[in-house]
Amino acid sequence: MIVKSQIKLIRSLHQKKYRNQLGLFFVEGRKTINELLTSRFELNSLYETEEGLIGSKDIRPEIISQDELKKISALTTPSGCLAVFKIPEVQSINSDNWIVALDEIRDPGNLGTIIRLCDWFGVTDLVCSANTVDCYNPKTVQASMGSLARVNVGYTDLSQFLANSDLPVYGAFMEGHSVYKSDLPEKAVLVMGNEANGISPEIESLISDKIAIPQFGKQSTESLNVATASAILLSEIRRR
Amino acid sequence: MIVKSQIKLIRSLHQKKYRNQLGLFFVEGRKTINELLTSRFELNSLYETEEGLIGSKDIRPEIISQDELKKISALTTPSGCLAVFKIPEVQSINSDNWIVALDEIRDPGNLGTIIRLCDWFGVTDLVCSANTVDCYNPKTVQASMGSLARVNVGYTDLSQFLANSDLPVYGAFMEGHSVYKSDLPEKAVLVMGNEANGISPEIESLISDKIAIPQFGKQSTESLNVATASAILLSEIRRR
Repeated sequence: MIVKSQIKLIRSLHQKKYRNQLGLFFVEGRKTINELLTSRFELNSLYETEEGLIGSKDIRPEIISQDELKKISALTTPSGCLAVFKIPEVQSINSDNWIVALDEIRDPGNLGTIIRLCDWFGVTDLVCSANTVDCYNPKTVQASMGSLARVNVGYTDLSQFLANSDLPVYGAFMEGHSVYKSDLPEKAVLVMGNEANGISPEIESLISDKIAIPQFGKQSTESLNVATASAILLSEIRRR
Repeated sequence: MIVKSQIKLIRSLHQKKYRNQLGLFFVEGRKTINELLTSRFELNSLYETEEGLIGSKDIRPEIISQDELKKISALTTPSGCLAVFKIPEVQSINSDNWIVALDEIRDPGNLGTIIRLCDWFGVTDLVCSANTVDCYNPKTVQASMGSLARVNVGYTDLSQFLANSDLPVYGAFMEGHSVYKSDLPEKAVLVMGNEANGISPEIESLISDKIAIPQFGKQSTESLNVATASAILLSEIRRR
């Protein structure tokens, strides 16, 4: 059973405005929920359509009907469980490692995939420009597959952040220097730009090293998607 | 103006069954349409909501209204133009290069991203198991960003294809040998597996070299998404 006021509250969390106002976000999918339950994230409420899908003997979800779940879910085919967590405080940034910075990433799926990549490649801090899509967007949470629990995502004035950073600032550009032939230090910032327009001119002026992924196909090929480009660059950074 | 029967025909192309029956598929977005117009793909019909969006002086689109476009589009926010093309014949496979093979990829966006990656990294042939999502699915076409024009995508009995191939068969596995330390030949097949289950046991028995992308984050991290894993492996293959 889920009361009407709670349905209304969770439905409001589909929108960024109310997530920020209430300091809450929601997650769907068994694997992701179970990962967040064992993380620093604080649980608000937990729902499942059948007993035993999620939780433990200390954490008992409310059992709700398929129809009730449909009312609160963001998925066309809800996965049987949904959890509401508090949005955690952003932690201070560790400048002793590579940091990924995003300049106006718009697609929630791309952001989620990049969070998952940071987690895989041991990047603990992701700094986003204020106009980057919200990391608690349901589609971002979905695509991040629980990696949100291990990557510290913060939103800030990106140009100010880069201007104040002591680290070298690498940026992905179509016309940059081949990443395969670039010197990559032990710690630095890697800036990835907007899906359609790349890195903005304001941020470009703060980049110390422009890098690119060489193209092996025909010249007419579109640029790479920002998430796949991030994958390749992070792999190169860690491989060495 | 677009006649009712044509609206009905294009709407039917949202489904694989009718795409195969009619040998047609549709594309949206100016950039992708213009790329396909200059490729080996044969045009069936072309629509735009304002003059001059797409086409050339030889190829004149029909002007249709926003409401008409909405009726035939697969997008929530249609992009102003739509083209119907004939599905081209699959070309014979070039075994003198790396070939990517997909074992039951289900997500149309992942397939589109992999087609775009093949194009970027000069892989001209993509062999898909019969149960892989259709490459003419509107979401796949969208994510491939015109690369469909340059990558030869075929569907076949994958185990038969691998059994008959003289090339070494590499496969991506969580527990494979680090790709960074693997010998990678000049030509081979790279098999990528299903999003949830990886490479199936039947296909696994045909793999000669299991490779993996080492993980640098904490051990609990989810596996990488199949499109980002493909990006990293193709980058490694071409870098050398």
